[in-house]
Amino acid sequence: MKAAATPRVPGFRASGVHCGVKAKGLDLALLASEVPATVAGVFTRSSVVGAPVELSRQRVRSGRARAVVVNSGVANVAMGARGRRDAVRMGDLAARALGCPARDVLVASTGVIGEPLPMAAIGRGVSAAAQALAEGGLARAAQAIRTTDTFAKLASRRLRIGGRMVTVAGIAKGSGMIEPDMATMLAFLLTDADTSSPYLRGVLRRVSDDTFNRVSVDGETSTSDSVLLLANGVSGAPRLSRTGAGDAHRFEEAVHAVAESLAMDLARDGEGATKLVKVVVSGASSAREARASARRVANSLLVKTAIFGADPNWGRILQTVGAGRVKLNLARTRIRLCGITVFRDGASAGPAARRRAAERLAGSDEVEISVDLAAGAHSERIWTCDLTTDYVRINAEYTT
Amino acid sequence: MKAAATPRVPGFRASGVHCGVKAKGLDLALLASEVPATVAGVFTRSSVVGAPVELSRQRVRSGRARAVVVNSGVANVAMGARGRRDAVRMGDLAARALGCPARDVLVASTGVIGEPLPMAAIGRGVSAAAQALAEGGLARAAQAIRTTDTFAKLASRRLRIGGRMVTVAGIAKGSGMIEPDMATMLAFLLTDADTSSPYLRGVLRRVSDDTFNRVSVDGETSTSDSVLLLANGVSGAPRLSRTGAGDAHRFEEAVHAVAESLAMDLARDGEGATKLVKVVVSGASSAREARASARRVANSLLVKTAIFGADPNWGRILQTVGAGRVKLNLARTRIRLCGITVFRDGASAGPAARRRAAERLAGSDEVEISVDLAAGAHSERIWTCDLTTDYVRINAEYTT
Repeated sequence: MKAAATPRVPGFRASGVHCGVKAKGLDLALLASEVPATVAGVFTRSSVVGAPVELSRQRVRSGRARAVVVNSGVANVAMGARGRRDAVRMGDLAARALGCPARDVLVASTGVIGEPLPMAAIGRGVSAAAQALAEGGLARAAQAIRTTDTFAKLASRRLRIGGRMVTVAGIAKGSGMIEPDMATMLAFLLTDADTSSPYLRGVLRRVSDDTFNRVSVDGETSTSDSVLLLANGVSGAPRLSRTGAGDAHRFEEAVHAVAESLAMDLARDGEGATKLVKVVVSGASSAREARASARRVANSLLVKTAIFGADPNWGRILQTVGAGRVKLNLARTRIRLCGITVFRDGASAGPAARRRAAERLAGSDEVEISVDLAAGAHSERIWTCDLTTDYVRINAEYTT
Repeated sequence: MKAAATPRVPGFRASGVHCGVKAKGLDLALLASEVPATVAGVFTRSSVVGAPVELSRQRVRSGRARAVVVNSGVANVAMGARGRRDAVRMGDLAARALGCPARDVLVASTGVIGEPLPMAAIGRGVSAAAQALAEGGLARAAQAIRTTDTFAKLASRRLRIGGRMVTVAGIAKGSGMIEPDMATMLAFLLTDADTSSPYLRGVLRRVSDDTFNRVSVDGETSTSDSVLLLANGVSGAPRLSRTGAGDAHRFEEAVHAVAESLAMDLARDGEGATKLVKVVVSGASSAREARASARRVANSLLVKTAIFGADPNWGRILQTVGAGRVKLNLARTRIRLCGITVFRDGASAGPAARRRAAERLAGSDEVEISVDLAAGAHSERIWTCDLTTDYVRINAEYTT
């Protein structure tokens, strides 16, 4: 659990309401900018995508948006023509409530697939959410996009650009999958910075790749994964339009910090998870091999169960890295767990190191697995969580 | 549990003994041909391999072998120069006991990594195993190569070649990993057929690729995976030297049947498994996409936990296939569970189908997941097992 003050982003209002898609709890969120905002989006690359993703992916191309309407409980995936109609209708309802063009409203849904959106409830929800819009409403919006997330995920940063205070804030939901049939990662980032559309797209692409794409709970990608970044320019700060300049760099760092905080929370809140695990691979012969090795470790069932059991099992880490057929210099390969070297010089670092590492693992809810392949200069880091009996129970005992 | 008569292969003797590498149970196996046999081998492609794999991979190149000596309990991996010396010494001991050149003895080890082979025990074991060699000894050898396998795996077939009876038999061990730090798949196939060396290599490569390489318990490859095929020619049947002729084809089919039976047993006996799962993907646009999709389904934690829970969750199957970004025609994609169509025409086949599928899943210990992508003519099948709370418990509760 993580406490967070509700961030406010000037010129944005937000709300979260219960409308009955889910039996209980908030299930519809609305995010709205008082003026048209520049927008960028990244979406799942799955070849099976939900109707809301299709619609939002198309609308985001204009580079302009006023609002995002999101429901949890039903994902509106695999519903054919009806799914497309419902996604458009959900956007229309929000556009009418806000008095803006339908093309400026983005849509997202998360939850069960293969079931229709209850449009009467959605209609009531959109009206209520529009009524409830408030500058401090982001915390309720973060609640409303949850499915089985055990806590709401918010993050924010502030910086000065050209003497003006600029805020970047975001909310996200992670891969909880009891009730829905699949994981969905949704994140919505808001800022009052003023940016050009190409610049904003570049920032979101780079930041997402280095944060949301560096999280793996169980190696799965969903049909509904969506990240949106809206910049409404209300701060009055100078317009950012080129990557690399001082202010542009600092703004990107702020977006990165917000996205990284949300991404870490996604891993921390993986289903059944008891530990947040950071996997760092260094000394790889290429960026590709660094990333592949980090992913292998982060997705290894044997490594993830060992972490759950607080077992400093370097053999499983070495085995899964090796199985990826990456270049490594075994005699100089080093494996550290929570800072304790457990494998070096081609062999175990001995029982005392193993015991110390076991103690650290047992006593920490944030764990670092570090592997130096001693074969080059490339490195990568990725977050994941442990694999627990609760994960299996949650995902096996969901009965249809 | 599977009953199997002990197969005998003329000209081969085998044994399994307890020598003390493990605290209890058989832990050393010897397989010996009375005459030099043609041999072929396939080995792990991991970039971290054990000393026994290095040694056997080198020796198998001659195409000739007399014996295989195998221990369970200690894998002799990550032991540096000492590991290499011990592997060579283990082969030397067997060569001396059998009165054959050391280069004709192959070696395999499976078990804990990072610990030295107890060579005094190995020495006693090799002597005892050489004494105990018997034509009917294959069942004890199959016992002796087990680690956490819950049952010994044997299979055999007979066929006539040129009027002579020819036998193909094999033993294997699977990916049980409580005590050792990693999975190891070992399989040893024996036949009294007479074959050329290039032909035998071709048979083993094709058969392994279609059987052992189509099994996945948890997506991991071990440092010690080895499959050996020895053909001693004792049957007196005509020599097989070219792929494709009638007898050669029938012989390959027999080897395939033995390997397939062993491979299915490996999946059936995956750690904590309650169900053998066959994943069939058809209608793929390429062989590569067929294989990738089948692997994704077989390795999906969400699918494997759903099978454990007897949940006919087509959403998870569709999602993991889609996440692989393969071509599919969603409107014509069909998903069947135990023969019941649960997804078709882009949507759920309805609650009645779902209920029937759930009943079948709950009542079967062999389950088939079939996905027709409707995008081409390529298909693939792979065996796996369900993912259970016992899997996590077994792999988390092993304490060092």
